[in-house]
Amino acid sequence: MKSFIPYDSSCDFPIQNLPYGVFSTPGDANPRIGVAIGNQILDLKAVRHLFTGPLMKGQQEVFAEATLNAFMGLGRPYWQEARQTLQKILSQDDDTLQGNSELRSRAFVAQADAKMHLPAHIGDYTDFYSSIYHATNVGIMFRSKENALMPNWKHLPVGYHGRASSVVVSGTPIRRPKGQTQPVEGADPVFGPCRLMDFELEVAFFVGGAPTQLGTSVPASKAQDHIFGMVLMNDWSARDIQKWEYVPLGPFGAKNLGTTISPWVVTMEALSPFAIDNFPQDPKPFPYLQHEDKYNFDINLIVDLKPENGTPSTISRSNYRYMYWTAKQQLAHHTVTGCNINPGDLMASGTISGMASDSFGSMLELSWKGTKPIRLNDGSTRKFLQDNDEVILRGFCEGDSYRIGFGECKGKLLPTLDA
Amino acid sequence: MKSFIPYDSSCDFPIQNLPYGVFSTPGDANPRIGVAIGNQILDLKAVRHLFTGPLMKGQQEVFAEATLNAFMGLGRPYWQEARQTLQKILSQDDDTLQGNSELRSRAFVAQADAKMHLPAHIGDYTDFYSSIYHATNVGIMFRSKENALMPNWKHLPVGYHGRASSVVVSGTPIRRPKGQTQPVEGADPVFGPCRLMDFELEVAFFVGGAPTQLGTSVPASKAQDHIFGMVLMNDWSARDIQKWEYVPLGPFGAKNLGTTISPWVVTMEALSPFAIDNFPQDPKPFPYLQHEDKYNFDINLIVDLKPENGTPSTISRSNYRYMYWTAKQQLAHHTVTGCNINPGDLMASGTISGMASDSFGSMLELSWKGTKPIRLNDGSTRKFLQDNDEVILRGFCEGDSYRIGFGECKGKLLPTLDA
Repeated sequence: MKSFIPYDSSCDFPIQNLPYGVFSTPGDANPRIGVAIGNQILDLKAVRHLFTGPLMKGQQEVFAEATLNAFMGLGRPYWQEARQTLQKILSQDDDTLQGNSELRSRAFVAQADAKMHLPAHIGDYTDFYSSIYHATNVGIMFRSKENALMPNWKHLPVGYHGRASSVVVSGTPIRRPKGQTQPVEGADPVFGPCRLMDFELEVAFFVGGAPTQLGTSVPASKAQDHIFGMVLMNDWSARDIQKWEYVPLGPFGAKNLGTTISPWVVTMEALSPFAIDNFPQDPKPFPYLQHEDKYNFDINLIVDLKPENGTPSTISRSNYRYMYWTAKQQLAHHTVTGCNINPGDLMASGTISGMASDSFGSMLELSWKGTKPIRLNDGSTRKFLQDNDEVILRGFCEGDSYRIGFGECKGKLLPTLDA
Repeated sequence: MKSFIPYDSSCDFPIQNLPYGVFSTPGDANPRIGVAIGNQILDLKAVRHLFTGPLMKGQQEVFAEATLNAFMGLGRPYWQEARQTLQKILSQDDDTLQGNSELRSRAFVAQADAKMHLPAHIGDYTDFYSSIYHATNVGIMFRSKENALMPNWKHLPVGYHGRASSVVVSGTPIRRPKGQTQPVEGADPVFGPCRLMDFELEVAFFVGGAPTQLGTSVPASKAQDHIFGMVLMNDWSARDIQKWEYVPLGPFGAKNLGTTISPWVVTMEALSPFAIDNFPQDPKPFPYLQHEDKYNFDINLIVDLKPENGTPSTISRSNYRYMYWTAKQQLAHHTVTGCNINPGDLMASGTISGMASDSFGSMLELSWKGTKPIRLNDGSTRKFLQDNDEVILRGFCEGDSYRIGFGECKGKLLPTLDA
């Protein structure tokens, strides 16, 4: 399968990918829906009349919206048909778009010229805690080796509600927060700028399908109808604030200072060739959490840290495959008590750490609570993030001479205001 | 001050109150904004042209919206002017509305004929934990007497992000959830319907004022510009599910099964005559949490439990005055790390329990973990809620021959689906 848009084999956005995003341009500040192809964006508002399949022909106006919520809400058969249409009209073997220079000139925008926006209005955002290596590492550090994994951890995907308002798109600067911490155990807390500022390497999925009703549940075996696609996520974390505040109701201000996502939503259809065996689960989960099919994915994840005026150093190489709980299980657990979900809701993996120390998904783990400084290319070291450091997450699946990439999820840490 | 609309002194909605809500009628299914007066609703869409003060005359269209978000977003000077206009046009001394029978017949709707909706689109919902007697009681039961109040509790208003999608308006039935519990400490968990279903008596405030920017904070001394008004809240809680799931990231499925709020938003202007001394705080909080004025309120709170086909029994009488942390301090703490807030966000008090055992705000405390059954009028007893029980919260401030009431916040507990 080849597109008439040129790109090389290392491109994140070949015709096998076709992630959805929301963009605007200097010439048209209205956010609108596009698909990444090569280094271009196909403006779906401009080509919505080409979606003439039996399902999408009556739903073309979802591509005239300023967010993906309406399209996400249509459901899997629509997503699949839209993907077929896109692969057809972007193929080198099809003349519909390729042969229409007037439409082509209106419908394609260089990614370099576009400003990306949040892909959806996020009604609710949930963060899980589903990488066993991460949960074990943090458990050891925040509590003790004996209590690292709480007794519930292997029975259910532990999660918590996050703050939807502070989810921002890649490129948005993040401000180092102020808050309360307790530098000396048992002593009085102090107030000031966070000293242990961290990132968290995560992957999040957008909920799709029709809204569910309060009081009903979606079992894992049917969850694919409500999982639209995935983005990279940096769940910025103020570790010292978190440690003081988090008992007994969980993280709060340590996390609501900002959460960055990548702008392109990679669909589950694009990821499906990279499905691999699910993580072995012992004990066997309850029936509502069981599903037969593979829903773990081989997604390479890379974290670069770029000091101000410096060059990026790769500080971690992890993989989505280290998830103990699948996205289907997360969604099933989220709804088992009757919680209603809506298209555009965001559900994140939790930090994804591998077993090896260079595959950990946070500074907390990479520097092992600050005891093992990380060395950067320029010779400087880091225990936690410094002001003006930029954190850049990347992710991709490696296909046969193509890759399904996520693009970048990046953000710069600005100094505290009025410190 | 007297209105031309008649009501007696026990009415929740005299001219001194004027709470805002969103309603529809059999004749017009479009949700629109109204103000409760006596047993009537004044339709603000129908009378928006009467808001001719210097501020509101350019903003009349906020009353043509289907939610209060736009009006909430205008800010305090606008809220105050709108209140003056309402008190004027509803006064028996003013002829604008009273003397216009055509407008009056269009503008008033009997509350009995109206269907109430959520008053705002709730972008984010946060639940605090700010009643010291409640936190102490639950701490003893979930942990131990020694660890009842965590070390952070008197230094900051502990809170967590809740689920916005499952906040529903009074009258919406709630389904008993299914989920995982661990009936025997240390044994394997089991799956099934919640056995320890509870309510939580809370009061929540709606955020108003312009949206704040990510990375900025609102100190307690300026928080009144972002607090629009209050509602009653029942934070339904599945205690057995909560106990098993809540470590280490806090409550999740035990709470996202539904949260009920009363439909009428009582403004801070209406509550201001009932401000009382703040709860004594020791240690003195950090400067960002300090404010000079009284922002605690003498709001009587009552919980009735009504069995199916039975009559209501009052099972608790509490008061908002038992809040250790004020709403201003909650908002300041919520934003101190830079979290942005938006009009329509909802922030709840946490369960409000008094010191006496008949003033506790949950079944968990009233029955002391099921060890002291509560006796109802009909002779039956309850440790936790039974299927088809209805929980009815009421609240009011007692003025000089008038009351500022909240109306009812009620919900019926339906049996588990497919149990």
